Parts: sequence; C-alpha cells; structure tokens
Amino acid sequence: MRRLHESRLLNMNRLTKLFDKPQIVFRYIKGEFKRSLFMYGSQFINTVNGAMALTQVSSNKCCDGYQKVFEHDSSELKCKMKFGIYLPPKAESSKCPVLYWLSEQNFITKAGAQQAASENGIIIVAPDTSPRGCNIEGEEESWDFGTGAGFYVNATQEPWKTNYRMYAYVTEELPRLINSNFPADPEKMSIFGHSMGGPRSSHFLCQRLHLSVTLFNLYDATVLAESYSGPELDILIDQGRDDQFLSSSQLLPDNLIAACSKKKIPVVFRLQQGYDHSYYFIFSFINDHIKHHAKYLNA
Amino acid sequence: MRRLHESRLLNMNRLTKLFDKPQIVFRYIKGEFKRSLFMYGSQFINTVNGAMALTQVSSNKCCDGYQKVFEHDSSELKCKMKFGIYLPPKAESSKCPVLYWLSEQNFITKAGAQQAASENGIIIVAPDTSPRGCNIEGEEESWDFGTGAGFYVNATQEPWKTNYRMYAYVTEELPRLINSNFPADPEKMSIFGHSMGGPRSSHFLCQRLHLSVTLFNLYDATVLAESYSGPELDILIDQGRDDQFLSSSQLLPDNLIAACSKKKIPVVFRLQQGYDHSYYFIFSFINDHIKHHAKYLNA
Repeated sequence: MRRLHESRLLNMNRLTKLFDKPQIVFRYIKGEFKRSLFMYGSQFINTVNGAMALTQVSSNKCCDGYQKVFEHDSSELKCKMKFGIYLPPKAESSKCPVLYWLSEQNFITKAGAQQAASENGIIIVAPDTSPRGCNIEGEEESWDFGTGAGFYVNATQEPWKTNYRMYAYVTEELPRLINSNFPADPEKMSIFGHSMGGPRSSHFLCQRLHLSVTLFNLYDATVLAESYSGPELDILIDQGRDDQFLSSSQLLPDNLIAACSKKKIPVVFRLQQGYDHSYYFIFSFINDHIKHHAKYLNA
Repeated sequence: MRRLHESRLLNMNRLTKLFDKPQIVFRYIKGEFKRSLFMYGSQFINTVNGAMALTQVSSNKCCDGYQKVFEHDSSELKCKMKFGIYLPPKAESSKCPVLYWLSEQNFITKAGAQQAASENGIIIVAPDTSPRGCNIEGEEESWDFGTGAGFYVNATQEPWKTNYRMYAYVTEELPRLINSNFPADPEKMSIFGHSMGGPRSSHFLCQRLHLSVTLFNLYDATVLAESYSGPELDILIDQGRDDQFLSSSQLLPDNLIAACSKKKIPVVFRLQQGYDHSYYFIFSFINDHIKHHAKYLNA
C-alpha cells in the first residue's frame, strides 16, 4: 500500500505540473476516483483528465438502465462537446460492449434504441455531429456542412483544421473517454449510423476492423467499399425507397452494391418500400440493427 | 337509386346554404366521398364538413403503417387544431379500434408506440393539448395552464369559454372526425394519457364507459374515482417513483388507490423505481399499456 501511495504521489506531481490543476490530485488522494481508474503514466493522466472533464447534463432511467447526456472539453476539437450514452442494466455489474451511433443526438429521444440495448446489454454512445460553439465563419450557412454535418473527417484547410477533427474525435478521443469513464469493454466496439453517419460507419469499419456494421441510408460509401481490404464483414443496410435523397440521386445504392460485390464483401441490403429519411424509418428497423450487432458483440 | 340521388340533392342544398361551399357538393356528387360516409341531416353535414376540413400536414411510413399529422378547423374550439394519427397496416383492409392519447404531440416522435400499435392493429390518435392560435391574454404565461395545458375541460368563464372547450372537443368533435375520415371502429375506443392527460383519461372513462384505461403518472384523479359508478373496469397505472411532481406532493397516488379501493375499482398500480416524468419513462412501459388495451379492443 505504501508503494501504491508513492506511485500516486509521483503521478500527482506530474499532474500538477502538466495541468496546473492541484484539485485533481487532492480529489484523487481522497479516493474520489475509483480504484479501477488507477493507471500509470500517460494512461493515468488521460484517464484522470477524462474523468475530470465529464459533466453530467442529464440522467433519465429508461428500460431498466439509464439514458444520460454528458458534456466535456474535447482536446481534439478545442471546444465543449456533448454525447448521449445509454447504460443498460447489465452495466451496473459488468463491462458491456459499446455501439457508437453516428448521426445526431435526436437519436436518444426518437430512435427507440433503448429497449433492444437494454435486452442485449449494449451501451450506445451518440456524439454530436460536429464541433460546437467554435464560431467559424460559414459553419452555420448550410444544413449539410459545418455545425449541421462535420462528415467525421479531419479538416486540412483553414479555417476548419483547428476544430473540425471529427475523425480523430470519434475514432480516438471519444472511445478513450468512454472506455475510461464507463463500464465499457474496449475489445467489443461497433458502429452504426444514418445519413451522413451511414457511410462513415463503413469507413471506420475499414480502418479499424470492427466486427459488425449497420447503416440506415447510404451516402458516398461506394469509394470506401472499393478500397476495402480487411477481415470478413457482416453488413446490414436499410435504405428507405421513398427517401428524398434517394430519388434525387444523391445516394446511389446500386454503386455500393456493385462495389461490395466486386470486392466480395457480404451485404444484406434492404430497400424498404414507402420509407423515407426520417426517424420514423430508423425507429421501424432499429431493433434489427441492434440484434445484428449483438450477435457479434455478445459472442 | 333515384331516391338516394334526391336525398343527396336535398342535402346539397342544405350544405350550400349552410357553408357556402358548393365545391363540397360537386365533389360529393362526383363520388369523391366514400359511400360509407353517406348519412342524412346533421350527421351528414358534420361528416362532409369534417371530411372537407382535414388537411394532411405530414405522412411518414412507420412500422409498416403510417404516422400522419392532420390539421382541421375545429368548430368547438374556433381555431385550427392538429392531431397525430398512427394507422397500422391492418387499417388498409379493415376497421381498427382507436386508442386516444391525452397529453401532447411529442408523443408521436418520442413514445415509441407505433411498434405495438402496428402489431396489435390499433389506431392511435394524439390531439393538441389546448386550443391553438387564439391569442387570449394570459394563455402563454404558465407552462401548466392555457396553451401548455387545457385540462380537457369546457371553460365557463371569459375570456376562456369561447375557445377552451377541450372536453367537448376530445369526447365529441374529435372522435366524430376520426370515425368519419379513417377506418375506425366507432364501437372500439379507449384512452390513455400522461401527466395532465392521465386523470382526464379516467374522467372520460367514468363518463363514457370505455373498456380500458391506462395512465402514466397521476394528477388530481382521486375525486373522479370517488364519484365513479359504471361497469367493471381494468385500470393500469404506471407512476415514476422519482417523478419530480410526486416528490413535491402534487400527485398523491395513495389517495387515488384508497378511493379506488373504497369504490371497489380494480387497479394495477405500479410505482416504478428510479423513473421520472419524462418520455424515457413512457417509452419504457408503452408496450405494456398498448397490450393492456389490445386485450379489450381486439376481444
């Protein structure tokens, strides 16, 4: 125990110098952080830093678990960000797989995902679409660019490149934050998404070798499929046949199917007659998607 | 057939004088209204008037059926009113029971009722809480009075009594409108509600002898239960134990249980630990409530 205490002090000194936040140290020594958070070096610093930065915005019991919203200072995006997280009842006693939703935060009130997440013991994380409150000129001008849609890329040009690093945020900072603050199994992660988030889910899949992916509606994913070279996949895609973006030829699912076929990527593609781009569509099929992920995440 | 035609002309003349809308008559003669809508006298006028007044605001396919929103000119409330209506797939081929939701319109996007309604072949109607756009002084001043909450009563005092006739609207005008414009079985109606709509559901039950009633959270329903003298009921009540209105002693469920007990009204009352007043609570138990109604509506 003495040795542990010395290690704590060592880290305390590093923290004090690095962050100039001695209150973290005192809270740590007082045992306010859980034992499981205790790690060494940069891992420790990230953890404590992560733990400190989280502010609970809301918490509502839902389907025996909790739907919560947190705010934190993002180091990648240089702004405050919010994310929704559903913690199933299983998370009270053991680690759970995490399913990341890429689209927008209305998901937590409109998609109806909590029932299936509760039953299958899966944590669902729904981050903001874009950096928030950066006041960059032009970011509010269009519904499908800027604050409305960040497209999960790391921007390379001014004035965007300082804040618009959504790729790094969603693939690195956010999972690190989730894994160090919640009972998340870091070996069991998967992603699903809608609209802008649909193709990005497949992109991350290609990059990060997740086990399963499900998409609602397609959008520019063809190029990603064409360049895929990873392990075997199991992809489920639902596309509304009366989606306004489909009829305006912005989605082009045929191209994606052809690309998957060429690369021998197995895809279940369901063109759902009469359905549009809305949450009513997502709500209608959300259970199928969560079950699809559960098959692998709970294997 | 000649006789029928004469009757139509007779009603045509009455309509023309009453509403100064000859286009209704021409549409009627051309057969644009369904045969089943044909009735005599005031019933006919109400029906055709109702059919004319409906304007579809939105329509989204959901769980194999359609979630729609309509607007109409309310004769009771002297203003334009909206209501949401979920039509299950069964409604395409046969008449369905109707379940009225008393609370507010966010229900259609947040409660997740469509899945169970689809499976059980039940139409769900969710009207506005109060008259809209009447610009009565004071109606916007409080969240729990006026446009925010009309309490489903017929107001008796100025300046409210002209428009605030929600009791007449919900128990007479709206069901008439629904029964004459949609494949609704007028013999199979029931009600459920939340917050302000909870106790009112039980009130209407007492007045109108509906078969089943379910409530989310309680509010001033005790008096209603005490005066009940109708046929046997089957009531399901879910109350969030962490509901902010419960802890501030605005709900008093014990009084209701005592009143039901005294009048020998069977109640299943579930005090749900950890749940609050929000849609996350409603979403968590909505399936139980719809199944409760389906037991009677589909009997």
